[in-house]
Amino acid sequence: MENSAEQSPQKVEEEVGRVVELAKELQDSASTYISRTFSDENSLRQRALSLESSVRRLRSLLDSLLSNKLIDPKLADKLDDDLQRARCLLHDGDAATFLPSKPQAAFLRMFLGPINVRASRKDVQLKVKEEYNSYRDRTALLFLIFPATLLILRSWIWNGCFPTFPVQLYQAWLLFLYTGLALRENILRVNGSDIRLWWIYHHYCAMIMALVSLTWEIKGQPNCAQKQKGVQLFLQWAMMQGVAMLLQNRYQRQRLYTRIALGKAKRMDVVWGETAGVDGQLWLLCPLLFILQGFEAYVGFLLLKTAFVGVVSEWQVIFCGVLFVVMAVGNFTNTVETLMAKSRFKAKMKRSKSKPEL
Amino acid sequence: MENSAEQSPQKVEEEVGRVVELAKELQDSASTYISRTFSDENSLRQRALSLESSVRRLRSLLDSLLSNKLIDPKLADKLDDDLQRARCLLHDGDAATFLPSKPQAAFLRMFLGPINVRASRKDVQLKVKEEYNSYRDRTALLFLIFPATLLILRSWIWNGCFPTFPVQLYQAWLLFLYTGLALRENILRVNGSDIRLWWIYHHYCAMIMALVSLTWEIKGQPNCAQKQKGVQLFLQWAMMQGVAMLLQNRYQRQRLYTRIALGKAKRMDVVWGETAGVDGQLWLLCPLLFILQGFEAYVGFLLLKTAFVGVVSEWQVIFCGVLFVVMAVGNFTNTVETLMAKSRFKAKMKRSKSKPEL
Repeated sequence: MENSAEQSPQKVEEEVGRVVELAKELQDSASTYISRTFSDENSLRQRALSLESSVRRLRSLLDSLLSNKLIDPKLADKLDDDLQRARCLLHDGDAATFLPSKPQAAFLRMFLGPINVRASRKDVQLKVKEEYNSYRDRTALLFLIFPATLLILRSWIWNGCFPTFPVQLYQAWLLFLYTGLALRENILRVNGSDIRLWWIYHHYCAMIMALVSLTWEIKGQPNCAQKQKGVQLFLQWAMMQGVAMLLQNRYQRQRLYTRIALGKAKRMDVVWGETAGVDGQLWLLCPLLFILQGFEAYVGFLLLKTAFVGVVSEWQVIFCGVLFVVMAVGNFTNTVETLMAKSRFKAKMKRSKSKPEL
Repeated sequence: MENSAEQSPQKVEEEVGRVVELAKELQDSASTYISRTFSDENSLRQRALSLESSVRRLRSLLDSLLSNKLIDPKLADKLDDDLQRARCLLHDGDAATFLPSKPQAAFLRMFLGPINVRASRKDVQLKVKEEYNSYRDRTALLFLIFPATLLILRSWIWNGCFPTFPVQLYQAWLLFLYTGLALRENILRVNGSDIRLWWIYHHYCAMIMALVSLTWEIKGQPNCAQKQKGVQLFLQWAMMQGVAMLLQNRYQRQRLYTRIALGKAKRMDVVWGETAGVDGQLWLLCPLLFILQGFEAYVGFLLLKTAFVGVVSEWQVIFCGVLFVVMAVGNFTNTVETLMAKSRFKAKMKRSKSKPEL
């Protein structure tokens, strides 16, 4: 057998020598490789940066030509489209890896330190996004089931009074959930997602609220109905939130699938594709979102009222009330802004579609 | 001016055309580069893996030769050293980047999703470690100051009774702190740190305890001295913990600096260097750690006693008591194991130093 032949000390010595040599060689290739990729990436980075500044410069040049009527509007439109294509190649293609990423948010640095969470490959970035969506799906279901169970148990078993532990378990879960969402969304942003900053701030607010509500004493057998009014409203709102999240996820997921299916297609095509398929859902989603935001503000005001009328005078009640109102107003403004941006974009698309092809 | 010359539509059209070309070229180079590095890295990964298995095979071969007395012990020692050197090159050098990393812990996946937190370059890994140490330094100071302030204010201003808010603020800070530490330590592990798993589990326990203690009702003017006994003990323990952390950080930091200064030096040298410099501190650190662990267990037992004697009968008291005891026992076993591993290693080093050089 080969094994018994190897067992002579001389053979082993030879083999050990060879292994040490191989280790040295591997170390050399690895460090050469690392320094080579470092300089290669630097040069790609420089090319991407200079290209981006050229696109920006030409854009403003085109605008000034157009406003001074020094260029045929049709030609300007065509050139604008070309620049847009260049921009899409740069930002949606493989080259995007070499553009500087958005600076890592303080929130990520606070929890993770200076580690880089940017995925270098496009397919990994899409996988991160896909996993984020399925995470949202799972949590949306729990968002529906958890408060519903609490509310049902309250009227069936607990005689109209929440016991402390299950409610606090729910609040701890919310804290964990929102921390996870805030971290993931910050990571998505670093990886090139154009998620609005407000939604991340919203999750910071929700984290703080979950933390504060944990310290909020809700037990009190004598008049628990009054003391727990806030909790009850909050749970009802959370159930609605669950439904809205499920709808939102369907909508977002369809957008992502279209984008993956089209692969290297231009951003324009993707946006057209996505709007076509899910317009119907948007008209179901929007009213629901607005009702939800109205209810959120209502819960906030109700909390403030109970605090100022003097039924419950803990600072947590006032704090949560104010946070609820702030979140409702922020959500509303941002939903409206998103819708307006969408319709502006659609109008522009229609305009350019109705023109004859060049 | 060049700018006015450029402003003719023809010139702009040309420039736009050139930019579109450049964008296509950049996209091509970027995707070529990405697929090339992908295959290059794969081949380096394969070489590293096969080398690692060779080292492991030769090691066991050497052991069996030695136990069957088929090899001169001196030669076996030399070959063992050689293999150790190969292993160090593989694990501490640039090649380590291409060895498969420890699988990412469920804790990281839970909070961050499937993003890869491994730094590919050695200097970045060291930077992450260095930042972790300075984070620990900052928190150790707060760990000392925060509870000290609470205890001082308690006897000077608050007449022996903690108000709820500052204590809860402190508990929320602990929750945030331990979450950050647990995340960072998991990231360090992925980046090749050999931190003992227990310390990470310890931080999970501490996170849970901070969360539970937030729901723990401590107010109660009539006999707050009894009700707040647990909090008071906890704060005293936290102050001691702060001192121990500061000492530990000094010790760890010195190890890291030695390692950085020696650069590509073999692991052996590093370990020798580090042990020489900080042996004195270890003899200050160890007794302090053991006292701390004893005190931790004492706090745990005291909490359990108050719960079972019936002064405070909330579940949080029992839960925290048990956690304290578990943490104390775990800390003790792991500190002892670390010390034993260190002394075994030192004995081995002394043995090989006393032999004549080959």
